[in-house]
Amino acid sequence: MSKIKGNAVIGQSGGPTSAINATLAGVISGCLNAGFEKIYGMKNGIEGLLCGDIIELHSYFPAPECENLSLLSLTPGAALGSCRKKIDGAETAAKLYEIFKKYNISSFFYIGGNDSMDAVAQLSEYASIHPELPKVNFIGVPKTIDNDLVLTDHTPGFGSAAKYIAAVMQEIMRDCSVYKTKAVTIVEIMGRDAGWLTASAVLSKKISGMGPALIYLPEVPFSEQQFLNDLKSEFDKNTSPYIVAAVSEGIRGADGRYVAETAMSGAVDSFGHKYLAGAGKYLENLVRERIGCKVRSVELNIPQRCAGHLVSATDIRESFMIGSSATSFAVSGMTAKMAAFVRSCGNDGSYSVSVVPQDVREIANKIKKVPLNYINSSGNGVTDECAEYLLPLILGECDIPYKNGIPKHFSF
Amino acid sequence: MSKIKGNAVIGQSGGPTSAINATLAGVISGCLNAGFEKIYGMKNGIEGLLCGDIIELHSYFPAPECENLSLLSLTPGAALGSCRKKIDGAETAAKLYEIFKKYNISSFFYIGGNDSMDAVAQLSEYASIHPELPKVNFIGVPKTIDNDLVLTDHTPGFGSAAKYIAAVMQEIMRDCSVYKTKAVTIVEIMGRDAGWLTASAVLSKKISGMGPALIYLPEVPFSEQQFLNDLKSEFDKNTSPYIVAAVSEGIRGADGRYVAETAMSGAVDSFGHKYLAGAGKYLENLVRERIGCKVRSVELNIPQRCAGHLVSATDIRESFMIGSSATSFAVSGMTAKMAAFVRSCGNDGSYSVSVVPQDVREIANKIKKVPLNYINSSGNGVTDECAEYLLPLILGECDIPYKNGIPKHFSF
Repeated sequence: MSKIKGNAVIGQSGGPTSAINATLAGVISGCLNAGFEKIYGMKNGIEGLLCGDIIELHSYFPAPECENLSLLSLTPGAALGSCRKKIDGAETAAKLYEIFKKYNISSFFYIGGNDSMDAVAQLSEYASIHPELPKVNFIGVPKTIDNDLVLTDHTPGFGSAAKYIAAVMQEIMRDCSVYKTKAVTIVEIMGRDAGWLTASAVLSKKISGMGPALIYLPEVPFSEQQFLNDLKSEFDKNTSPYIVAAVSEGIRGADGRYVAETAMSGAVDSFGHKYLAGAGKYLENLVRERIGCKVRSVELNIPQRCAGHLVSATDIRESFMIGSSATSFAVSGMTAKMAAFVRSCGNDGSYSVSVVPQDVREIANKIKKVPLNYINSSGNGVTDECAEYLLPLILGECDIPYKNGIPKHFSF
Repeated sequence: MSKIKGNAVIGQSGGPTSAINATLAGVISGCLNAGFEKIYGMKNGIEGLLCGDIIELHSYFPAPECENLSLLSLTPGAALGSCRKKIDGAETAAKLYEIFKKYNISSFFYIGGNDSMDAVAQLSEYASIHPELPKVNFIGVPKTIDNDLVLTDHTPGFGSAAKYIAAVMQEIMRDCSVYKTKAVTIVEIMGRDAGWLTASAVLSKKISGMGPALIYLPEVPFSEQQFLNDLKSEFDKNTSPYIVAAVSEGIRGADGRYVAETAMSGAVDSFGHKYLAGAGKYLENLVRERIGCKVRSVELNIPQRCAGHLVSATDIRESFMIGSSATSFAVSGMTAKMAAFVRSCGNDGSYSVSVVPQDVREIANKIKKVPLNYINSSGNGVTDECAEYLLPLILGECDIPYKNGIPKHFSF
């Protein structure tokens, strides 16, 4: 075990996921193995760090194999707390450097999405124009259920969200299939800018034969008329009395405006406020109005990002691994890097990933959308190629510890 | 194995649950053990039976220990299909008797809720005024996530829904706890007439220490002003920046009207239709308007009744058992009975249930509400006594079979 100079500090930022704590566990494990004297955790990301709100992680996790670390890996949410604070200029960076000096920080790990990678990029930039400052290695570790970061095959947290969506979609299909009445069920799925999560609904069909007949992603301009035509064609096929459609919360018309926003502009609630309906609720009303059959909408909502009871073992394993790999990048002196996944496919179809460093400045503020070859030509479904990309990410189940009927979580 | 005269027919009716197929498996297993020559399944309950839409269950389940029967027990939804058809007078009963004769039916098992028990009661009544007809034993087997049937300690399917709610509530608490911003999250839970499912949200707090600060059931008249006062008191306590409130979809004002219905009466959507919001969405808007802090609502929606991936082992075991006990009631010549649970508590606090026959006519069209001693004096939470009643029902996890990352289900 090599003894490394200085101390490490770790933070979590942005929206929580079911796997962000597995990555935290991976970074802690890597730091313990690297031999940092002290390993600090920022409470609520850089927002807490700026106030000196930090905790010593050694006291909770004395060794890489401790039970607490396994429990942390399977706890959803961000155990250290999160924030949405951006580094708005040199002043904030300078303040953070004061804290780095005070706590003798040599490695800074930030687990988060797009905005968090921007924070890492800005701190690195500040360091590069201030060579007089003590060296700090700034490493970003990705996290987002949205899978929309560039330069990585996929993002930690996505696989578990996709697994939740695929599993719940199959269950919704079961629920729909019990009646013989003509009915439409619209399932609204997270992902404002990229359709990766909505695309995952296809896995239910691929695996079990039961899944949504129609899938709409934000990558394709949404047309209400086409949607109604698609429903009519499905009913005409007469294969089942019910139709399930998966729609992204972020579907937009050809004019670029969100579907619900456009259509609900005239509606107000009883407080006289603009009625903010989701895409699913809006389309539910549209079907009721224009087709007149039984219809309901289901918003999968926040369990998509916090259903720790149904995580992908692949995702949890990889999320831990990317955290521990990130520490090795810092130990070897790298900075301004984000740890990223590279996928390898064996000749036998086997799947594996490795972790590589990528330039964090090339990642921040960019969005990886679902490519067009993953979307069918009618724009109402996804291709087999897409399903093949998605499938390995949801595989495997974790042995979740339960206490009195509900999962046991780690808390600081 | 005794050979019983005639054949058996089994149906499912009403809304599906995660455990109704475990009960079906129990009835099939009981019928196999009783030695019925033929065991028929109605497709879509009596609606299918009236059209002769039936299948022979022996071919799918040749023996009580077959793998298909285990798989069926862990498949959510109603595998035979369901219906909402009522027996509207003697004509329907007479038609059904024609079918009983044709298929030599001596035992009729109907798995369902309140309406289904009414169907069993009506058929029994028809039989009693037509003693010339061949004897058929009519047995109801309860099923409802709502837990609102009388004369049974609880209902099959409720424990799994309650477990899902308790587990997801804990996860939502984790999700809420990551930010330091003052925020309210309103979780809308199923149960229009009785608050059993909403009350189950308390288990998250009892077990993990994290749970909703406020719980509102339909048994207590809901006051918007009291709700706003309750939120203010919680914020004043200053123990956490976020408040989670669990509300039943069925909360009603003192005038007996549903909260959302009352308040949204002036609102229309962009089609000019009355805006039908749920209680959660309505209260979200109320908090935004009157308190002005960050607020969101989450409707747990249909996963509450179909999340087969997270069932209570106690519920699945008992749901099977009540099905197989129901067959023994028929075999011993009983009719017009519903199988019901009686709870026993040992001196050591241990929990067990037995199954007894109850008069089905005493059950149909009645609702078991949450008793007042289970609700706190402020009407915004439930008592320890309530939590003690609920806890045993959610205990234990099932070993769900997975295939390619999602649960494997049984299909006919």
